[in-house]
Amino acid sequence: MAIMTKEEYIESLRKMKPVVYMFGERVTNVVDNPRLRAGIEATAATYEAANMEESRASIVAESPLIGEPVNRFTLPPSSIEDLVARVKNNRRLGGRVGTCFQRCTGLDCLSALSIVTYDIDQKYGTPYNARFLEFLKHVQKNDLTCNAGVTDVKGDRILNPCEQEDKDMYLRVVERRSDGIVVRGAKAHQTGSLSAHEIIVLPTRALKKEDTDYAVAFAIPTDTPGLIHVVGRSTLDTRELQGCDIGNTLYSKYCPTVIFDDVFVPWERVFLCGETDFAGDLVVRFSAFHRQSHGGCKAGRIDCMTGAALTMMDYNGTSKVSHLKQKIIDMIHRAETLYGCSIAASYEGKKQPSGTYFIDSVLANASKMHEGKEMAEVARLLVDIAGGFVSDLPSDKDLENAEIGPLIRKYLKGAAGVPVENRIKMLRLVEKLALESADSVSDIHGGGSAEAHRVSILRESDLEGRKKRTKRLAGIKD
Amino acid sequence: MAIMTKEEYIESLRKMKPVVYMFGERVTNVVDNPRLRAGIEATAATYEAANMEESRASIVAESPLIGEPVNRFTLPPSSIEDLVARVKNNRRLGGRVGTCFQRCTGLDCLSALSIVTYDIDQKYGTPYNARFLEFLKHVQKNDLTCNAGVTDVKGDRILNPCEQEDKDMYLRVVERRSDGIVVRGAKAHQTGSLSAHEIIVLPTRALKKEDTDYAVAFAIPTDTPGLIHVVGRSTLDTRELQGCDIGNTLYSKYCPTVIFDDVFVPWERVFLCGETDFAGDLVVRFSAFHRQSHGGCKAGRIDCMTGAALTMMDYNGTSKVSHLKQKIIDMIHRAETLYGCSIAASYEGKKQPSGTYFIDSVLANASKMHEGKEMAEVARLLVDIAGGFVSDLPSDKDLENAEIGPLIRKYLKGAAGVPVENRIKMLRLVEKLALESADSVSDIHGGGSAEAHRVSILRESDLEGRKKRTKRLAGIKD
Amino acid sequence: MAIMTKEEYIESLRKMKPVVYMFGERVTNVVDNPRLRAGIEATAATYEAANMEESRASIVAESPLIGEPVNRFTLPPSSIEDLVARVKNNRRLGGRVGTCFQRCTGLDCLSALSIVTYDIDQKYGTPYNARFLEFLKHVQKNDLTCNAGVTDVKGDRILNPCEQEDKDMYLRVVERRSDGIVVRGAKAHQTGSLSAHEIIVLPTRALKKEDTDYAVAFAIPTDTPGLIHVVGRSTLDTRELQGCDIGNTLYSKYCPTVIFDDVFVPWERVFLCGETDFAGDLVVRFSAFHRQSHGGCKAGRIDCMTGAALTMMDYNGTSKVSHLKQKIIDMIHRAETLYGCSIAASYEGKKQPSGTYFIDSVLANASKMHEGKEMAEVARLLVDIAGGFVSDLPSDKDLENAEIGPLIRKYLKGAAGVPVENRIKMLRLVEKLALESADSVSDIHGGGSAEAHRVSILRESDLEGRKKRTKRLAGIKD
Amino acid sequence: MAIMTKEEYIESLRKMKPVVYMFGERVTNVVDNPRLRAGIEATAATYEAANMEESRASIVAESPLIGEPVNRFTLPPSSIEDLVARVKNNRRLGGRVGTCFQRCTGLDCLSALSIVTYDIDQKYGTPYNARFLEFLKHVQKNDLTCNAGVTDVKGDRILNPCEQEDKDMYLRVVERRSDGIVVRGAKAHQTGSLSAHEIIVLPTRALKKEDTDYAVAFAIPTDTPGLIHVVGRSTLDTRELQGCDIGNTLYSKYCPTVIFDDVFVPWERVFLCGETDFAGDLVVRFSAFHRQSHGGCKAGRIDCMTGAALTMMDYNGTSKVSHLKQKIIDMIHRAETLYGCSIAASYEGKKQPSGTYFIDSVLANASKMHEGKEMAEVARLLVDIAGGFVSDLPSDKDLENAEIGPLIRKYLKGAAGVPVENRIKMLRLVEKLALESADSVSDIHGGGSAEAHRVSILRESDLEGRKKRTKRLAGIKD
Repeated sequence: MAIMTKEEYIESLRKMKPVVYMFGERVTNVVDNPRLRAGIEATAATYEAANMEESRASIVAESPLIGEPVNRFTLPPSSIEDLVARVKNNRRLGGRVGTCFQRCTGLDCLSALSIVTYDIDQKYGTPYNARFLEFLKHVQKNDLTCNAGVTDVKGDRILNPCEQEDKDMYLRVVERRSDGIVVRGAKAHQTGSLSAHEIIVLPTRALKKEDTDYAVAFAIPTDTPGLIHVVGRSTLDTRELQGCDIGNTLYSKYCPTVIFDDVFVPWERVFLCGETDFAGDLVVRFSAFHRQSHGGCKAGRIDCMTGAALTMMDYNGTSKVSHLKQKIIDMIHRAETLYGCSIAASYEGKKQPSGTYFIDSVLANASKMHEGKEMAEVARLLVDIAGGFVSDLPSDKDLENAEIGPLIRKYLKGAAGVPVENRIKMLRLVEKLALESADSVSDIHGGGSAEAHRVSILRESDLEGRKKRTKRLAGIKD
Repeated sequence: MAIMTKEEYIESLRKMKPVVYMFGERVTNVVDNPRLRAGIEATAATYEAANMEESRASIVAESPLIGEPVNRFTLPPSSIEDLVARVKNNRRLGGRVGTCFQRCTGLDCLSALSIVTYDIDQKYGTPYNARFLEFLKHVQKNDLTCNAGVTDVKGDRILNPCEQEDKDMYLRVVERRSDGIVVRGAKAHQTGSLSAHEIIVLPTRALKKEDTDYAVAFAIPTDTPGLIHVVGRSTLDTRELQGCDIGNTLYSKYCPTVIFDDVFVPWERVFLCGETDFAGDLVVRFSAFHRQSHGGCKAGRIDCMTGAALTMMDYNGTSKVSHLKQKIIDMIHRAETLYGCSIAASYEGKKQPSGTYFIDSVLANASKMHEGKEMAEVARLLVDIAGGFVSDLPSDKDLENAEIGPLIRKYLKGAAGVPVENRIKMLRLVEKLALESADSVSDIHGGGSAEAHRVSILRESDLEGRKKRTKRLAGIKD
Repeated sequence: MAIMTKEEYIESLRKMKPVVYMFGERVTNVVDNPRLRAGIEATAATYEAANMEESRASIVAESPLIGEPVNRFTLPPSSIEDLVARVKNNRRLGGRVGTCFQRCTGLDCLSALSIVTYDIDQKYGTPYNARFLEFLKHVQKNDLTCNAGVTDVKGDRILNPCEQEDKDMYLRVVERRSDGIVVRGAKAHQTGSLSAHEIIVLPTRALKKEDTDYAVAFAIPTDTPGLIHVVGRSTLDTRELQGCDIGNTLYSKYCPTVIFDDVFVPWERVFLCGETDFAGDLVVRFSAFHRQSHGGCKAGRIDCMTGAALTMMDYNGTSKVSHLKQKIIDMIHRAETLYGCSIAASYEGKKQPSGTYFIDSVLANASKMHEGKEMAEVARLLVDIAGGFVSDLPSDKDLENAEIGPLIRKYLKGAAGVPVENRIKMLRLVEKLALESADSVSDIHGGGSAEAHRVSILRESDLEGRKKRTKRLAGIKD
Repeated sequence: MAIMTKEEYIESLRKMKPVVYMFGERVTNVVDNPRLRAGIEATAATYEAANMEESRASIVAESPLIGEPVNRFTLPPSSIEDLVARVKNNRRLGGRVGTCFQRCTGLDCLSALSIVTYDIDQKYGTPYNARFLEFLKHVQKNDLTCNAGVTDVKGDRILNPCEQEDKDMYLRVVERRSDGIVVRGAKAHQTGSLSAHEIIVLPTRALKKEDTDYAVAFAIPTDTPGLIHVVGRSTLDTRELQGCDIGNTLYSKYCPTVIFDDVFVPWERVFLCGETDFAGDLVVRFSAFHRQSHGGCKAGRIDCMTGAALTMMDYNGTSKVSHLKQKIIDMIHRAETLYGCSIAASYEGKKQPSGTYFIDSVLANASKMHEGKEMAEVARLLVDIAGGFVSDLPSDKDLENAEIGPLIRKYLKGAAGVPVENRIKMLRLVEKLALESADSVSDIHGGGSAEAHRVSILRESDLEGRKKRTKRLAGIKD
């Protein structure tokens, strides 16, 4: 059966045995580690939604590949409707969890591979698309979560992969065997790598001919031998571990660096190996899909931030203050801009030779450019509205202290009728929404750097046509 | 036959005899006045496009009302496709003329009336929708251009219509007769009123019960007795009259104030008369449609401005300069933002009881908020890229002067291989694109004030839902 | 002797016995608590600077009151030179510590009191100024650090103090005795309250007649009985406690809520008691001085952030990338804007009746408006330049782990020649500079809310003069 | 006597016989041409102010060179006070005339030459400084206005001067004679060249060794044989000529291109001739001074725009509308930012070897960067506040028309008690203030391009010091 419940999902992860380090120590029980679990819960929300009355119809669709209902997070888009559903589901789920649900990157990889493996095969007669489709069936039939292993650590950024002093700064094939390949390298910022069953690796950039070993794409289980997940630090990372002052009481986000310490990949899971001319296309397709994704989930996150701001106004007694209402409008406006451009990118998608649909890349990048600049402004507005306690609210443990607890309760009281606990909880949530670096840094760097989005727009806009039409108005003939 | 050619359109205007003043003098031959003609040519482009191979399919569609192909500028949207076509055609035409083509406001009125007259009739049993459909048939069968008479002069803006010292500061019914009504007032900023065959008047704001006389909507020919068009001044308004230094050699824009000096309107052309509770709905619908429209045409105008900027870079020898390329990206990004939000508003439209489709108002207003703020920035970037001659280029007449002409030609030369005349023409066009107030002020005030767009977004967003979802994350039950 | 060394300062704090809670537990040794100590070190830098060759001349000046050299942080400005020195010292020290050094608020209080106590006495014949000067002598002779107790917790913000359900939501006099007064209330966001020897309390807002009990200003030692410091949580607050991943290895910031649980204040330390008409003036003066202060220290903090960004470019191999250099310019530009407006406010200061100099309030508020909006943008630019590891860098403890330490060292290597440890340290510092909420929230809320700065500008600008001069140009006589 | 009255100034111009073309025709009476006269009146305001009670003390100062009181517009700064007076006078006068008064560029040239001619002589033993001081005495004794001839036409901007196809695209020495030199070229954007007695020519950029002929600086009367002033077109340039709809009823601005058609310059007026290594320094000094100047006059122009906005609020009945008041604050904030940074640049000036004071260049460029970006925003805000009539107000001639005049008066009425003529006049002034290209383009390009300001900031900031201080915090030793 192709649709898992949330519980089945959690249990399926419990069976996996990935190698994980955090704060210098090995983590053996991933699922019950409170920090990691909060992230897993966010992904679990995508399973839960598939089984909830009000969202099932949006999240579940029939797969033309396996002829069964599947969770849309395993379904590369084969229609405009599919493209649009991606953004709408992302907004709904981003708004539901208030952070990253960590399941879109895998779909972005599946979508990119479903286009590009076909194109490679057309040119080179390779068997990548067939392999990929087998893998996709596996994913769909078992309702798996995939993680995107794209961003290499890059070493000296001014140098190409094969120019680096240490050749492993971009993940590469170090051995080709009859049964598969061995790869080495590290992928950074692997949000949700432990919430996933599979890691899909793509190149991180366009490659030159001499970079053959770096032109590699594949998928492997997250507990494959040689894989090491090192969970990095983010601003509020000790809160779940301490079990207090959590803010978002249900969900969170974590980002490991995943090291590929000579990992074996069987040929049936290899989707690119040496065709350097397609590396750029793979990453461009993936990135464009991922930027479209962000236009949904980040709009959803702004919805949360707006809800928190409005609630704080209620709790502070400032819900009628006109300059704060203006700031609410500024927040909503940014959500709608991200969302509008992203959903437009979807509606304007086009069918590719493989049958998969691809979005309008200029509009998707336009959305992402706003995200990279404006999410920080949204967070700033939220802090402005909520007030200074966002940065120095006493701990829940202070509240529990017999001597000072009552005093803190007394002095943190806001508008009449609002339980002080609610005000405290909401202030703590504001801290999480505005200041959790795992979220806020992804606003800037997720889906590639700000400059990458800009360059994409310039590259894919029709500059000559614009010049030509303008010359006509000026009366210039040339 | 429902599709006119450009020539037929011009001749149809020639037959009309509107009362027109400009610079204190009566203008009797509207069509051949060079200033007005440049504006009429812009509207003519909508007729021309309907007859051009490459655009016919986009501009012409079959009307379900008359069962004939019509120009889409006479077709209220009865499908998502229709809504989307509006924005795409607007971008194409805005990009083609580089200014306002002055035919969208009429369609915005037709679209609003096609929704609201139906709703009024449902509530009050009035005959407005039937009258309106008769009028619409007339418009479609004769391929007419309509002008939106919406913005009243408003007097003291803090006062409601009936509180004004002079009761005529908002257009009102001054007499009700058996055959029709007599109206008095003035509508400001009537872009293209002389390029139109009909003026459609709507209220400019929501009304209270006591403002019954102001709740009036109707349509009349632009040369109806009592109508006086006073063409106002804009920054470059003497250029066409002088016949030199025109910039946009093909098109321009003009904006009369239209005075209704006791004008008779027969009942069959009256679409609202006294139902104050629907005045607000009419203006909200019109405005939302008009904001959607702008998301297309203004994106097209940015396309022109970007073309001009790119051409100036070629002509100045700066096409490789990296900070200028960044500014080009900033221009394109703004075009795509306007367009993306507007086209998203269209795809997300919904069918109304009358069968007409209405756009997503939040997204349409999100688009317009960007226009109101960012078009000025686009103009600034264009001037930055083009250089200081935008403000002080010698006149074409200086070029023609035997003594100094050769010197000016010598010193205005730019990059090798570019004829100096072309550089001069493009600089002149930049002046027009960046500094024509008839265009730039409409970026700010067209479709209602900036604040109106903001208030719309706040009013139409689900604030309570956002709060509720956020409280769940904070662990607040209430 | 009026100038303490850093060591003497630390020892002087060690002798104090304030009541402190953090994470629900009593902290008895403030000075050796690693979290609090990092904050105390920042204040200590103001003592160190007074004894360093290169900064002594800037930090030390002779006090006209005691006729001895004093640390300028105890010296209310009695000349333009003093006003300017405030901003320059703040920039230098802010740039040295990379966070808040927590000693300016006390000086801002001293400066405000030195103006307003004089004015009150002039009107009411009260003895406040004499008392204040005695206190100031004490501060100067002992080189004390004072903390500003200004921001009340405020309860329902729409209500005035005496309208609140709980009358203690603004600090107030609950008893008047022959030897002094008893006060009750709480002051929030008391940055550095444990780095200070004295707390100076001022009203937080203008007051009406009925708010007599709230019109109170005074100074008391930070370990006065009844005072309770509850150290609140900020984003990175566990780092110093854990002793790793600290980022800024030398300095930090913490912000207690200070509860006044029926605290006795002797009359000689009371500087306002009941004169409601001067409450507003006190807070306006304090706020204006504090906004001026921020124009220095926050420019210094941007200097640090710019240094970190430039270093990251060196370490990543991106120091020649043109769009990153543009971002560096954008960072510097913001520092200079804050600084320029603040230093202009100082040069344009005016002597007040008491002899103290007061800054130009419009310019000081102009500086603060930029801070409130642009510091978040500076942080965003820093993160953009530094890269995604800002949010998920593995812990120093991972580096120390025998199994994965070498792998992490391998994969975090940047540009050739840069020790990987340096790159890791700098990334960790970037996290602290960009994402420490104790700093970033103060950018927004320090010195009053954004709206307060805006209102100040409107109130203190000559609007009628602007109208009058403009009418002359238009040829309007009235 | 060194101080002229306004009348004497006008008469002194009347005696000059420059060669002038406008709209293809020779203008022989410059002073009485209404378009040019409006510009001359703006410069005349600098003479008037020297003779007005309320401004004399600010405008007039004793020259150390001639030992007489002179107008400060002829006085290179020899103290901090002089530097500050420049900005304050500029703000006052910019606010008085609402446009450019066209006398600061000459002073900026004098100031730059007074520094650099000294430095050249020190290095090369040339006689430039002595010649310059003689010229300065002449200027001061006769209270002359000088014009800055800096911006060359530049041809292909990617090429250096001597690489151009036509070698005259940068002004150059074409002949060296015993009595002087002959120069050829053209200087663009010569604001106020006909309001000036002398043109001071400087190079427009740093030069390489091979560009010797282009390293030339000198001063000549504006009616020197061979000089041709071609007055370019700006947006509202026909208004004064038509004598109606003028807006600013007192002052305006015009910008000729000045062609040097083999002009003889006697040696005693040559201040640089061949020392290419000082060309860059001259233009950098001039530009920095000019950016400082703008921080005053443009703040003054915003003061006018704010006055116009406030008056329009009174006239429209919207003076209590909160979002409009917020926009007023946004306008004032921008004025104070320009001004604050510019005045800070002045106070932070330093004495140069010649004795002249030079401003802090980073702060001056910080001010100018805001101008280049924010003046357009101020204009946008003004239009937003004033309303749509800014772009289409009927002409004064319509008002005079017997038939429609009364109707227009009726319908343009605003708030009760405000004469409709006043509202019309103020709307017309708003058009001038917001949309006159001679002003608005100078906001962007005056004092060099936006990029030039940015590069200056990067070049003159201490980047290494910032890195070093930051490394200390991170615990990095290197």
